[in-house]
Amino acid sequence: MNMKPNRQHRRRERTKNAIRQAAMKIFLKTGFHQANVKEIMDFADLGYGTFYQYYNSKLDVLLEQANEVYEMITTRYQKPPSSEKSIYQRTFNSIYNVLFTFDRHRDVMTVLKKIRHTDPEANKVWEKIMQELFQRLEFDITWSMEKGLCRNVNRDLAISALYGMCLGAIDHLLTQEKSNADILQISKEVALLFKEAIFITDEMPRL
Amino acid sequence: MNMKPNRQHRRRERTKNAIRQAAMKIFLKTGFHQANVKEIMDFADLGYGTFYQYYNSKLDVLLEQANEVYEMITTRYQKPPSSEKSIYQRTFNSIYNVLFTFDRHRDVMTVLKKIRHTDPEANKVWEKIMQELFQRLEFDITWSMEKGLCRNVNRDLAISALYGMCLGAIDHLLTQEKSNADILQISKEVALLFKEAIFITDEMPRL
Repeated sequence: MNMKPNRQHRRRERTKNAIRQAAMKIFLKTGFHQANVKEIMDFADLGYGTFYQYYNSKLDVLLEQANEVYEMITTRYQKPPSSEKSIYQRTFNSIYNVLFTFDRHRDVMTVLKKIRHTDPEANKVWEKIMQELFQRLEFDITWSMEKGLCRNVNRDLAISALYGMCLGAIDHLLTQEKSNADILQISKEVALLFKEAIFITDEMPRL
Repeated sequence: MNMKPNRQHRRRERTKNAIRQAAMKIFLKTGFHQANVKEIMDFADLGYGTFYQYYNSKLDVLLEQANEVYEMITTRYQKPPSSEKSIYQRTFNSIYNVLFTFDRHRDVMTVLKKIRHTDPEANKVWEKIMQELFQRLEFDITWSMEKGLCRNVNRDLAISALYGMCLGAIDHLLTQEKSNADILQISKEVALLFKEAIFITDEMPRL
């Protein structure tokens, strides 16, 4: 079933992509609330009416991409027990996957973050993504505590504190210029802080 | 100059306090935006008009107290070099002072946090308090790094990550019932996570 989509389908995909890219550019340049469909379509060099063959509103364009970030974050996560050789390696992989996703979609996440307090729908997707990260961390810490890998601290407090640490790292990433952001290095450093904070061993337990 | 304020002044202070306390109760019970002055003054068992001898609006009552939290946080901070015996002790003291202040004024901070995204003035005070915490952390980490006390990680990233950790601890505190919140224990545990994350020694440098 390796059928290529036909030419018309490919053309539609190209147009849609052009709209998405133009919209993000305009959202970042003009601000989401000030941006309008005409400006987006002028930038994409497409007719105004074409927009509504693909989307109902500028918010739609943003939410579609935000939901893709959510899907990406969800699918990249692997619950323990895992094949990682050390606690550090596992911590690094988790953090790298999250930061990589945020960096790759930094325009979407930057706009989403900015408007989430004034737009309930944007806030819903933002919260959904953050909830996913929180639950993952909750699972990992709980699992690690049960295995005796962690310091003897209150579980909920540890989860809140370390979740906060990850949000801090994401904040740091989003305030960097894209060209300056070295995801690999940032992930290594955050993984180190994170690992040293809570783990008392670097050995993964035997399965 | 140990003059006691006169009786009229004391009476005014008592009335003001009754308004403040009633307002916070109502804000938490009814929600800030739904709360009104009549409800507050009924709860305080005071006449409606009396309110306006002390405040211009319900927001005034909240902002006055929020500004007091800010003052309290500011004055309790001691810059290094300090008399603390260990890095852990210093970290603990800093975190305890912040959590103690937030706990003592948890009603004010809870309401402020809730409405800050819809009320620019509330947001301004919230940001002012958070900015104070951030700058303090920034100063401490920078100072510690210069003294060679920290892991070799990017300074700005470390500050963002550890600031996030503190916000996570504050979040944890504010979601606890007041009666359950053991500030001393929470501070000990967060100080441990914080200290282990970034510091590579427990010894304060010689002055």
